[in-house]
Amino acid sequence: MDADFHLDVALIHHPVVNRNDEIIGSAVTNLDLHDIARAGKTFGVTTYWVVTPYPLQQDLATGIVGHWTEGYGRVANSDRAAALSIIRVIASLEEVIMEMTRRHGRRPKVIATSAGGQQCGISYAELRCEIIEQKIPVLLLLGTAWGLAPAVLELADSVLPPILGPGEFNHLSVRSAASIILDRLLGR
Amino acid sequence: MDADFHLDVALIHHPVVNRNDEIIGSAVTNLDLHDIARAGKTFGVTTYWVVTPYPLQQDLATGIVGHWTEGYGRVANSDRAAALSIIRVIASLEEVIMEMTRRHGRRPKVIATSAGGQQCGISYAELRCEIIEQKIPVLLLLGTAWGLAPAVLELADSVLPPILGPGEFNHLSVRSAASIILDRLLGR
Repeated sequence: MDADFHLDVALIHHPVVNRNDEIIGSAVTNLDLHDIARAGKTFGVTTYWVVTPYPLQQDLATGIVGHWTEGYGRVANSDRAAALSIIRVIASLEEVIMEMTRRHGRRPKVIATSAGGQQCGISYAELRCEIIEQKIPVLLLLGTAWGLAPAVLELADSVLPPILGPGEFNHLSVRSAASIILDRLLGR
Repeated sequence: MDADFHLDVALIHHPVVNRNDEIIGSAVTNLDLHDIARAGKTFGVTTYWVVTPYPLQQDLATGIVGHWTEGYGRVANSDRAAALSIIRVIASLEEVIMEMTRRHGRRPKVIATSAGGQQCGISYAELRCEIIEQKIPVLLLLGTAWGLAPAVLELADSVLPPILGPGEFNHLSVRSAASIILDRLLGR
């Protein structure tokens, strides 16, 4: 599948906040790589950026991806190879935006996500139209730990509303949130 | 939140199929418990049934749930305690259906899910209406490994269409699929 739209996803491991709203860097987890790559590939995401400034964490992520795209995993499960092949490990969000700008000849529209966000950002329907109909290159930012740091939110052009069920409880994993957002933006 | 509808989810570890369509039992995984419980609690699921006939696997699942609902985890993260409190570990799908029948005074409508399923089952919109408007108690079946065994599908009243992106690639984790299905059925 070569989609004629361009949505990239960036999973931010630094800077994010902890439960006390302090700026931290979080650890890369295996399941975040797999689940979000599988959902990304299913919904036509071009590149899934795994953003961490820590060299050892970059090596870990690159090693996991390599196992599935070049190592034994490729033979064992070709679907998993295809999914993880959309991952790129990179040091910072600024570098992601520079690389996307280079690829597309224009700065991508940068959209943040937040579980506690305001309802007044861009709607899912509007962003879906911009991606699919208007072919605007979009970068979707996902936070680990307790969410994206203010410095990241300041780089975003808009924010998607939080995903809500019937009640007030809202404690989705980033893997679940990413899957639901991609379905709303790109699902058939 | 006390929802006035009743949707339960059952994650089936046996009988499921492997890549060669052989009947197997799969292992309970920690992340399946957490991610689907968190999505379930967010969207108002009443009970998340973890179905495995193996006593050691039942003990493992019960131990993980207990850590978060009664042990140290409850203090560390009360949201996680609330999420995992909807989990019940049980030996078979037949027992789930019996227990739901006892609770609701009628057999639940049993809905299977399948990544390779036909498009001719019940639609998401129709099932959403039956759950929210008609208050029909519904049990949603999710498969681990390569999916639900034929014997499980035969217990179901209908099947939801597979979740598709723009292309043919379809390799979502059960955690992602569960999250998207719950959003489609119960999201605001």
